[in-house]
Amino acid sequence: MTDTIVALATAQGVSAIAVIRLSGKDAIDIAQKVFKGKDLRNAPSHTIHFGTIQHEGKIIDEVLVSVFKEPNSFTQENAAEISCHGSPVIVKEIIKVLLQQGARLATPGEFTKRAFLNGRFDLAQAEAVADLIHAETENARQAAINQMRGGFSKEINHLREELIHFASLIELELDFGEEDVEFAKRDDLKKLILKIQSYLKTLIQSFDQGNVIKNGVPTVIAGKPNAGKSTLLNVLLNEEKAIVSDIPGTTRDVIEDEIVLGGINFRFIDTAGLRETKDVIEAIGVERTRDRMKKASLIIYLFDLANTTFEEVREEIQGLEALSIPYVKVGNKVDQANPALLKKLGREGFIFISASQHTNIDQLKEKLLSFFHVDSVKSGDVLVTNLRHYQNLVQTNESLNRVLKSMEDGITGDFLAMDIRQSLHYLGEITGAITTDDLLENIFSKFCIGK
Amino acid sequence: MTDTIVALATAQGVSAIAVIRLSGKDAIDIAQKVFKGKDLRNAPSHTIHFGTIQHEGKIIDEVLVSVFKEPNSFTQENAAEISCHGSPVIVKEIIKVLLQQGARLATPGEFTKRAFLNGRFDLAQAEAVADLIHAETENARQAAINQMRGGFSKEINHLREELIHFASLIELELDFGEEDVEFAKRDDLKKLILKIQSYLKTLIQSFDQGNVIKNGVPTVIAGKPNAGKSTLLNVLLNEEKAIVSDIPGTTRDVIEDEIVLGGINFRFIDTAGLRETKDVIEAIGVERTRDRMKKASLIIYLFDLANTTFEEVREEIQGLEALSIPYVKVGNKVDQANPALLKKLGREGFIFISASQHTNIDQLKEKLLSFFHVDSVKSGDVLVTNLRHYQNLVQTNESLNRVLKSMEDGITGDFLAMDIRQSLHYLGEITGAITTDDLLENIFSKFCIGK
Repeated sequence: MTDTIVALATAQGVSAIAVIRLSGKDAIDIAQKVFKGKDLRNAPSHTIHFGTIQHEGKIIDEVLVSVFKEPNSFTQENAAEISCHGSPVIVKEIIKVLLQQGARLATPGEFTKRAFLNGRFDLAQAEAVADLIHAETENARQAAINQMRGGFSKEINHLREELIHFASLIELELDFGEEDVEFAKRDDLKKLILKIQSYLKTLIQSFDQGNVIKNGVPTVIAGKPNAGKSTLLNVLLNEEKAIVSDIPGTTRDVIEDEIVLGGINFRFIDTAGLRETKDVIEAIGVERTRDRMKKASLIIYLFDLANTTFEEVREEIQGLEALSIPYVKVGNKVDQANPALLKKLGREGFIFISASQHTNIDQLKEKLLSFFHVDSVKSGDVLVTNLRHYQNLVQTNESLNRVLKSMEDGITGDFLAMDIRQSLHYLGEITGAITTDDLLENIFSKFCIGK
Repeated sequence: MTDTIVALATAQGVSAIAVIRLSGKDAIDIAQKVFKGKDLRNAPSHTIHFGTIQHEGKIIDEVLVSVFKEPNSFTQENAAEISCHGSPVIVKEIIKVLLQQGARLATPGEFTKRAFLNGRFDLAQAEAVADLIHAETENARQAAINQMRGGFSKEINHLREELIHFASLIELELDFGEEDVEFAKRDDLKKLILKIQSYLKTLIQSFDQGNVIKNGVPTVIAGKPNAGKSTLLNVLLNEEKAIVSDIPGTTRDVIEDEIVLGGINFRFIDTAGLRETKDVIEAIGVERTRDRMKKASLIIYLFDLANTTFEEVREEIQGLEALSIPYVKVGNKVDQANPALLKKLGREGFIFISASQHTNIDQLKEKLLSFFHVDSVKSGDVLVTNLRHYQNLVQTNESLNRVLKSMEDGITGDFLAMDIRQSLHYLGEITGAITTDDLLENIFSKFCIGK
């Protein structure tokens, strides 16, 4: 873990400045080799130095270098951050010369992984760093920073230690073999398990809300060609995202965009109209639509009140029912609606809008929100937003149920100890008290490079 | 100029970190108001401090704040850089609370403008900062950094001062009215002007190369539908940028991408085929093609050797001649070529390729390069890359010609002084010794926000 890694830490693109991050035993020495200015190796930690990055007599850029001395850096290793002009060409050249001086390219999440391995924070907190970066709403950001700053980690570690204590006592009993001693009072163990389960239950229940907060709601706008899907998307997004034309089949690609309604990120997905088509390019689009609908959390089924029969609507709604995904039935072009159709449909469960005239759009938005309920997240609120944590919490709870069952059944101590060890394993994986290379690889490979 | 400005300085997007920049008299005080950690106001310049950004009891993010005390910052004002997690939501919230504390959003280029107005560098150097950020090749980067670090500024200022000296002497002569004194020796003035013109000539001549280095070569790939334009673009770019299908009219949008050949950035522009079309969406694409062709520096005229007549080729080449833009005539699908057509065309001036089989692509690339010649730019090379500088250099040269002509014609001192003043004006605008609000507005409004 002593080699030095390098990566661009800021977003790709043309900008005022970009920051290249180095971490590892030789981070400052390597930076010094390409830096002309003050000697960084003698500089105190947390100081900034102006100079140039040079290579073979060429000045690549004027830069500021920030110096961090171990253990006072994000990774707790020696670190340097080179703040250069925000040109992709400059970033590429500087990283190239740093690689020539002995650094290597960081893998995704490697900086955060080192921070975790060096004990800066636990695994659940490390994962929250990624959630923080990808937060798309204020609620998601707040949930992530709460988790990053501790969240449930402390409480879980505390409960886990108490449980370890009991596991040790029970294992001690086993050493005494036939003597029938009982160091671990079964009543106290039961109390502890119920206490843990009560806490787990709160966390598990918070995941419904946490998941919506973190991941948003993918919402497909589906319906026949020319039902007005692109127009509705534009109205919802308040901008001209999709090319709107009155030619059926205009939308070929799946067009996405997001808005935050009531603290929830709705990701609206406009789709190629669902019809049989002879246009092979459009056909690819229709194929994608069916894919998207299966992955949606919510479907807005849009139909044209002026050009659809009652039977068509009924048939399509039957198709939707089969998908088992919540949906909203929306009749568009209410201003040109066929009165007979309106009468037949009744108002039950339908929302009638005119996308082009912006009629009843607020009613539609309210309906979308009614499927989800999210409170505003405050500092210190503990919410489970991570699927891995949720799964481990559920598994812990189930294995604790097995411990309780075993105690009721008067199962011998060795089996009881095994069940407890299993619970400890699941709990420990959440905070990283127990890790495997696979687990870490799986978590950090999803980070972006530079983090 | 004492108010405090704020902007995101790094590129937009999800990333490990983002940097928000504050500059102005109260920059550090304003940062302190939202920062919980060490007191930044007592911190020495060029130091970094860990803490949190808080607002109304909510922790927005954990951050590092870099403190710069005037005049030791980029703008030579007090400055703070907040390095936060690279989430657009966090950036937005932090900027929001900084605005609430009295900062205002920076206008494009305002940080660099302040650096210029506070005397950190001259105008030509300030413009080079923008060129540096937008550099798309190593040559463009090197030309920009050479200019940023001085370039021709020093020499131009030096020559301008010598010329001011003469102008003053001539104006002094005018004060003596009828006395026919000559403080400014005409021979020495002539020598100076010739020296200045010799330097100007070098700079002016460097612009041909400098312009290609800075701006690249917009290269339109034009031709009838299904000539293979998208395939050629893909081959040139070595990637599947355009959707390739064998259906004529597939490409609707103008698709662009760039590759660096021989140190030059060729920006290839694939276009909707030039045909009369009844597809209204495609028609918009064709319209755009004609626009693009007029702005191109080079046109690749592509035709299908299997499905084009000699007369069609001749007719289209006549159309190209009328545009007065360099072009390359490229016959595609040489593997399926009509032998009679090949014979009629002869090899003169044509390049015969097969885009799909990658035949003769290197020959085409060589041909493209033959239109331009660019040396590798070294540290210290002085190149004019900026159109504004070029225009001012040409105007200076012309007004100096008028001075020489006036001297030859024995024109009186007052007219001579006017011509010299005009030269001084043009020269002074290059380095910003002479500026107007309009000039500055025009230059800095093209910068990105945060620079």
